[in-house]
Amino acid sequence: MELAAARTIERAAELQERGNVASYIPELAKVDPQKAGIAITLANGATISAGDCDEQSTIQSVSKVFTLALALGTVGDRLWNRVGREPSGSAFDSILQLEHENGIPRNPFVNAGALVVTDSILSNYQPKEALAEILSFVRALADDETIHIDKAVAQSETETGHRNRALAHYLASYGNFNNQVDHTLGVYFHQCALSMSCVQLSRAGRFLAFGGAIGAGEARIVSHRRAKRIAAIMITCGHYDGSGDFAYRVGVPAKSGVSGMILAVVPNVASIAVWSPGLNKNGNSLIGTQMLEQVIRELDWSIF
Amino acid sequence: MELAAARTIERAAELQERGNVASYIPELAKVDPQKAGIAITLANGATISAGDCDEQSTIQSVSKVFTLALALGTVGDRLWNRVGREPSGSAFDSILQLEHENGIPRNPFVNAGALVVTDSILSNYQPKEALAEILSFVRALADDETIHIDKAVAQSETETGHRNRALAHYLASYGNFNNQVDHTLGVYFHQCALSMSCVQLSRAGRFLAFGGAIGAGEARIVSHRRAKRIAAIMITCGHYDGSGDFAYRVGVPAKSGVSGMILAVVPNVASIAVWSPGLNKNGNSLIGTQMLEQVIRELDWSIF
Amino acid sequence: MELAAARTIERAAELQERGNVASYIPELAKVDPQKAGIAITLANGATISAGDCDEQSTIQSVSKVFTLALALGTVGDRLWNRVGREPSGSAFDSILQLEHENGIPRNPFVNAGALVVTDSILSNYQPKEALAEILSFVRALADDETIHIDKAVAQSETETGHRNRALAHYLASYGNFNNQVDHTLGVYFHQCALSMSCVQLSRAGRFLAFGGAIGAGEARIVSHRRAKRIAAIMITCGHYDGSGDFAYRVGVPAKSGVSGMILAVVPNVASIAVWSPGLNKNGNSLIGTQMLEQVIRELDWSIF
Amino acid sequence: MELAAARTIERAAELQERGNVASYIPELAKVDPQKAGIAITLANGATISAGDCDEQSTIQSVSKVFTLALALGTVGDRLWNRVGREPSGSAFDSILQLEHENGIPRNPFVNAGALVVTDSILSNYQPKEALAEILSFVRALADDETIHIDKAVAQSETETGHRNRALAHYLASYGNFNNQVDHTLGVYFHQCALSMSCVQLSRAGRFLAFGGAIGAGEARIVSHRRAKRIAAIMITCGHYDGSGDFAYRVGVPAKSGVSGMILAVVPNVASIAVWSPGLNKNGNSLIGTQMLEQVIRELDWSIF
Repeated sequence: MELAAARTIERAAELQERGNVASYIPELAKVDPQKAGIAITLANGATISAGDCDEQSTIQSVSKVFTLALALGTVGDRLWNRVGREPSGSAFDSILQLEHENGIPRNPFVNAGALVVTDSILSNYQPKEALAEILSFVRALADDETIHIDKAVAQSETETGHRNRALAHYLASYGNFNNQVDHTLGVYFHQCALSMSCVQLSRAGRFLAFGGAIGAGEARIVSHRRAKRIAAIMITCGHYDGSGDFAYRVGVPAKSGVSGMILAVVPNVASIAVWSPGLNKNGNSLIGTQMLEQVIRELDWSIF
Repeated sequence: MELAAARTIERAAELQERGNVASYIPELAKVDPQKAGIAITLANGATISAGDCDEQSTIQSVSKVFTLALALGTVGDRLWNRVGREPSGSAFDSILQLEHENGIPRNPFVNAGALVVTDSILSNYQPKEALAEILSFVRALADDETIHIDKAVAQSETETGHRNRALAHYLASYGNFNNQVDHTLGVYFHQCALSMSCVQLSRAGRFLAFGGAIGAGEARIVSHRRAKRIAAIMITCGHYDGSGDFAYRVGVPAKSGVSGMILAVVPNVASIAVWSPGLNKNGNSLIGTQMLEQVIRELDWSIF
Repeated sequence: MELAAARTIERAAELQERGNVASYIPELAKVDPQKAGIAITLANGATISAGDCDEQSTIQSVSKVFTLALALGTVGDRLWNRVGREPSGSAFDSILQLEHENGIPRNPFVNAGALVVTDSILSNYQPKEALAEILSFVRALADDETIHIDKAVAQSETETGHRNRALAHYLASYGNFNNQVDHTLGVYFHQCALSMSCVQLSRAGRFLAFGGAIGAGEARIVSHRRAKRIAAIMITCGHYDGSGDFAYRVGVPAKSGVSGMILAVVPNVASIAVWSPGLNKNGNSLIGTQMLEQVIRELDWSIF
Repeated sequence: MELAAARTIERAAELQERGNVASYIPELAKVDPQKAGIAITLANGATISAGDCDEQSTIQSVSKVFTLALALGTVGDRLWNRVGREPSGSAFDSILQLEHENGIPRNPFVNAGALVVTDSILSNYQPKEALAEILSFVRALADDETIHIDKAVAQSETETGHRNRALAHYLASYGNFNNQVDHTLGVYFHQCALSMSCVQLSRAGRFLAFGGAIGAGEARIVSHRRAKRIAAIMITCGHYDGSGDFAYRVGVPAKSGVSGMILAVVPNVASIAVWSPGLNKNGNSLIGTQMLEQVIRELDWSIF
């Protein structure tokens, strides 16, 4: 497996077409598209890694997986009254679907849905507490107290996030927002700025691969059933309007972020994080997807 | 497992809300909504079944799985130039998406996409030959020469299928149709009228569960990789605009038909067919989905 | 006024950018984009004309004005149960809106709406009679028995009209079609192939300018009120998704056709026909619009 | 004409179905749906009025006509780079179209378009100055220094205007917003809260009826051509997705507001204001439209 990981990074380094680094968040636009890392955490807790696997990046939309787990723990299945579980058939920040479906976002992984998820967490906490709760949840998942939030990126998004502000006010206009728009957006921009390495992210994702526990024989973070269900949403909705193609080519549940990170889970086998900042047309890591495709095929880990 | 199947049928019989039988095809509207059957075919070739598992029904859109496999065998990956692999975010017979995306259907399981798939088969055969090819393919898959086409249902659809005719002409207006609209539609209406029992359908679906072979140690129908990839499309697109919910609740790749049939595959483990004619709001079998949800949970067969 | 007409043609001849001749109907693609004609018929019956004003062209969608008047005479305001009176906000042959609004076209001047109008005429006649009725109506309006249908163009559209066929079957799938799709389409393709010169068309349009009569002191074709109302639909819907811009720039009710013809009416003053085959991006005559803008401004005939 | 106005009010009083008062702005929800007023200002400056013609109401979206005239005076035709001139085919506060058309609103009378218009005025003024400029422009048009802004309604909209906030941030995300969202929204909410009676509004609207001057022989406010062009936009876009029907039934350029006010212009003849707070399904005054339909027909003032 060390070999597979190393080979994956080697081949990734050779790829000429690297995609485009996200430009709408100034801090993200500065990152070098040659970067590529991978980390695989197994049921026994061992983590195999290669490339820029220890370099930190904000996780952006990968954070939506963690807030979803946290929100389901807090408000339970009532969350599904406010957000659906269907692929969207449109871009990650599309506002169009909300108009057709009365302010109920299609799923928790498009931006509007993730805002509703974060808003539901805020209903139980003050904004600062909510953020602390999210940070402390991710630290516990990864078993790493050094994980932090990149304030410069959070600030950068706060200043340029007109699209997310529009989504939030739009949800509020349909009554699908419980807190002040600025409060929920503040927490949302900060959760996206959670800064992690591939190694840290692969460890934080274990609970989804191992039935809700962070490893074989470990205590459960969420119930077995809930872990499976979150993984189901990852496969149908985890790559925005490229989810079908990702399932077809790679064949495992995964969630991508606009920073070029992807968290993938191989049920009962491994949790994998890859990172490479160049994006394809759907806003998913171009090289990251190729690395996952290769390593999953080499190890025969497709769930299908 | 016999017990699980039997219990599933017992509980299905007790359910009060049965959904609505499809009314737009007159022949389908006559079926008794109390019907419920299940059949599970294992890797060793054994088939466990219960309820109305031997009663025949047309398979309708479940046929799209078989024509997809056949078309990929015929024209290969060139098929993907004419049809996408993304969930649609809209109803099974929606024409709207085609207008936004220049006549390329979102995936091979919405009606427009299935018409393109059938049209690609016709490019290599005369209409009658194409139909014979499809029938003979399904018979081989199920290893059952008695499988036939219900001419009355095919005729019924031919007369009332304005929506499918509209889709076909619309595709043609974008140049995404190679044969005469009437010829392709004729084959399409007949493939939907393939008449099978749950037992026959579960046997015909084995190649998707067992890596392209119709059972352990049997010859391959399609390559290992292609079988997995078709299963991937089933999980993201197999239940129209209810695919996300089906993955969330049931957790296995599956394809539904408006007759109330569903074909589900548990990779490396089993191929399952259920039938109950009442439909939910997305056009998928209401009781069939519940039977699958129960049996998959009881046997712990979720792929996540 | 002769001067204004002549000057208009002169200036039109000098314009470099001529638009693109419609290519989707092969017969139309052959026409010389340098052609430009104008004819103005006044209340006293006099017709002033210039340029290629006597050359014949099929009138295409301008025919929708005549069939609307005929259908309202035949079925009356019941027509409005099957078609709306609102601008569409989309292209002339868009099918999208029908899906959102249950098969009721937005207005009688988009293709779907015009098909419903023709279909309502067919409900009272056999197809051949319906066509004869339309031809005889237009001949009476223009007081010219030589007006005929260009069979080659009609045939050309019949063979390539997949989009219109899709619209018709789609309407039928919503139950908004009373006759066989082929019959209504046959009449529709022939009405679009009505062949007229600017002089003939300006004479045929008189009834809309003069309160329903074909000139001062003449018998009424339609009631005063109906003539005004058809003109109102012309100004809001007569130029597809360029209607707002046409009203803004030219300022009179008008209906365009993809052959480059436009029929405009100046209430109580004149009926104007212009022709130049090059089209702008909305499918309306580029030079024709400029000719109308100039002549209306020069004569101060804007209705606003 | 006094008789026509009085008869119109009499008949309006008898109508049973009054529509629904706008509920999304709390202050508007309190108004009595039995109210009905009309005022007609003629070229000689005389104003005929009847019913609740002196009662004040906020003018809401009717203000969009005044800010459009002001913005065109300020930035000229460059405004049309930021907003279109086509009917929208959708609701007044729809956000959907913006996504399809890259943040360019369809016309200046849907909310998004009006926000762009106000934003363009702010580019030349500080927010408070911009508001003072609008107020002073409307006072000059009506020749009435007592016209003021209803602060309670402005405040009410500021607190509940999530939809407009969403539109503004959405425009900003496309770069089609030059000022701080809060500043432009502040001015917008206040312009909507301009408080006027029918008499005042009919006087303020004169410049649109009389070629840009506020009466025969008076100084021009806008050029002859610009006045006509604004009237053209009123007829194609002035009643949201009911503009086609209004043109068909009433037959004059007009702009409605959600408070139940409508300003209509009869070119060269009269400026008319009606008010009745109950709305039809498109958000236009139900009784107000009926009053206009009746008086325009009785006086034979249709422009068609």
